Amino acid sequence: MLETTTSAIRPPDEAAMAAARELHGRLTKPAGSLGLLENLSVRLAGLAGTCPPPVPEPAAVAIFAGDHGVHAQGVTPWPQEVTAQMIGNFLAGGAVVNAFARQAGASVTVVDVGVAHPLPASTGSATPASELGAPRLIDASVRRGTRDLSVTAALTRDEALAAVLTGVRVADELIDAGAGILLTGDMGIGNTTPAAALIAAFTGVDPLDSTGRGTGVDDATYAHKVAVVRAALARHTPDPADPLGVLAAVGGLEHAALAGLILGAAARRTPVLLDGVIAVSAALAAAAFAPDAVAAMVAGHRSAEPGATVALRHLGLDPLIDLGLRLGEGTGALLALPVVTGAVRVLHEVATFDSAGVAEK
Amino acid sequence: MLETTTSAIRPPDEAAMAAARELHGRLTKPAGSLGLLENLSVRLAGLAGTCPPPVPEPAAVAIFAGDHGVHAQGVTPWPQEVTAQMIGNFLAGGAVVNAFARQAGASVTVVDVGVAHPLPASTGSATPASELGAPRLIDASVRRGTRDLSVTAALTRDEALAAVLTGVRVADELIDAGAGILLTGDMGIGNTTPAAALIAAFTGVDPLDSTGRGTGVDDATYAHKVAVVRAALARHTPDPADPLGVLAAVGGLEHAALAGLILGAAARRTPVLLDGVIAVSAALAAAAFAPDAVAAMVAGHRSAEPGATVALRHLGLDPLIDLGLRLGEGTGALLALPVVTGAVRVLHEVATFDSAGVAEK
Repeated sequence: MLETTTSAIRPPDEAAMAAARELHGRLTKPAGSLGLLENLSVRLAGLAGTCPPPVPEPAAVAIFAGDHGVHAQGVTPWPQEVTAQMIGNFLAGGAVVNAFARQAGASVTVVDVGVAHPLPASTGSATPASELGAPRLIDASVRRGTRDLSVTAALTRDEALAAVLTGVRVADELIDAGAGILLTGDMGIGNTTPAAALIAAFTGVDPLDSTGRGTGVDDATYAHKVAVVRAALARHTPDPADPLGVLAAVGGLEHAALAGLILGAAARRTPVLLDGVIAVSAALAAAAFAPDAVAAMVAGHRSAEPGATVALRHLGLDPLIDLGLRLGEGTGALLALPVVTGAVRVLHEVATFDSAGVAEK
Repeated sequence: MLETTTSAIRPPDEAAMAAARELHGRLTKPAGSLGLLENLSVRLAGLAGTCPPPVPEPAAVAIFAGDHGVHAQGVTPWPQEVTAQMIGNFLAGGAVVNAFARQAGASVTVVDVGVAHPLPASTGSATPASELGAPRLIDASVRRGTRDLSVTAALTRDEALAAVLTGVRVADELIDAGAGILLTGDMGIGNTTPAAALIAAFTGVDPLDSTGRGTGVDDATYAHKVAVVRAALARHTPDPADPLGVLAAVGGLEHAALAGLILGAAARRTPVLLDGVIAVSAALAAAAFAPDAVAAMVAGHRSAEPGATVALRHLGLDPLIDLGLRLGEGTGALLALPVVTGAVRVLHEVATFDSAGVAEK
């Protein structure tokens, strides 16, 4: 089934891109004055294969959640129970991703692909219910957290594949339900450690350059985290040409599922707005499965995590927002969503010099 | 009347800012993980004098339009008639600012403070009318374009004051009508030349560092534009401690009116989201009138014009968006609006660790 998905991913449509560039030159604004938004709208025309491309609405955030055996190595000060507790918070509408999703008019789907602890029955949030409908939970648990990647492979190849296929299936379900753009979200205490390992494995940079402080660790914990990533890569020597092998050796279930979501979106010629460092580490895996999947990716923001910048450079993507965010959940993608929508609306709604009776220079 | 406005502008409320910082520490996210959004929400609490500050809704864009005598010096390839023609486009809903305003749910008010040519009776745009109501036009023309600042003062002090007071009055009207945040917009062929002169006058940088290529000029025109700005400053030697004198000598009517809008918003403790280089040149004037007005300013984006970065640095403001835009109209401010709204909504809507039953590290 993964082969069906990857083989459906096509290169961008050059004619649609040329048509978008030509249209930009006739709209009532100086040529090039919308900067990166013009490039973005041209890319989305190429992805859709038509100009103007469809306005990317409605938006759907998919938050994949999992836990990590490497948590036992002390790579984060947060208890592992927080992954499950935050899912309760998402479902109650009390997290930052919920506030941003309500503002953006986006739906929120939480997918348990490998949470270690039982989900709470209810939470104490007093946040009012969203008019968009309550966030939805999908139980697609592959296993209750990965194995410790510092001592063994985090996942078997079958487990990694199951998570990837879950991501593909979620993309299909959301697009079938009408979503015009997918946004990546993630939750998993400790998940910046596998992200750093994935980024080093796929790009070849030193773990010092792919590893950050995540939710905030002190100098000693940071040095230990880099050492854990370095040792894991030395132990597993993952082959970047074998993305399933890399995900199994040093990845996480949410990283694998996000790679699948991206592939699923690309196969449907639907844009996928990437959040932070977890998303871009998964995007590297998706690009290794199918290089043309990059055409469906829009980089929402530049995470404060250094590995995110390494991955974006490798993918050739310019982030839309750069505000020092390092929260995850999909928050950076949601803040960037209006930029993406605006870039496309320009091609639909702005008058031409000719139609508006405005002189050209 | 200007004295009444400037004397109403107060420093930010330290207690409200401290309360916002304390609240951020209790919300279900790692401390500091929202980066610049946390600082922004703290600033807005200080401006409002309460925590959480009001959600900045609804938003109102005010586009001030004027023409420029310096156009005769060949500083831009666009004919002066385009200022009036683009107003027709704004009123018909066909410009980029209209598309972004519809998306953001913002109203658009166009204020003629000094357009040289008659406004077109109607336009040929086929863009559907906005559900927000049609853009509104206010006729507050001070004179039909400024004088040529390269040969004489652009405005008398009385003319500059009239434009500033128009801006104050528009701020009051929009806030009285319910606006929770004002966005600056501008239209005026040739208006980056006075903006470059204002920025050099208020910050002391060389005109080479405050002058850009505007809507796109070739090397020869650019060199000529810098020379025009340099000669104007040498002729008028404007005193940065006398903002009305600076605006009169080398400013524009829309720049003066925008300074008034900013002062009017600050006096009402209402945030004002700055667009590009025209807006930040006006913001320098506003800060010279009343230094505490900076507390009401939010920098929407970093314009591609180099003078914008000079001005933002002088004001101590970090822009929210940096996408190489150089269109004006209010487009950069509108793209940044969801970031501002989102920053405030976090303080209203996100659950605390305690209320959500989420463990801390």
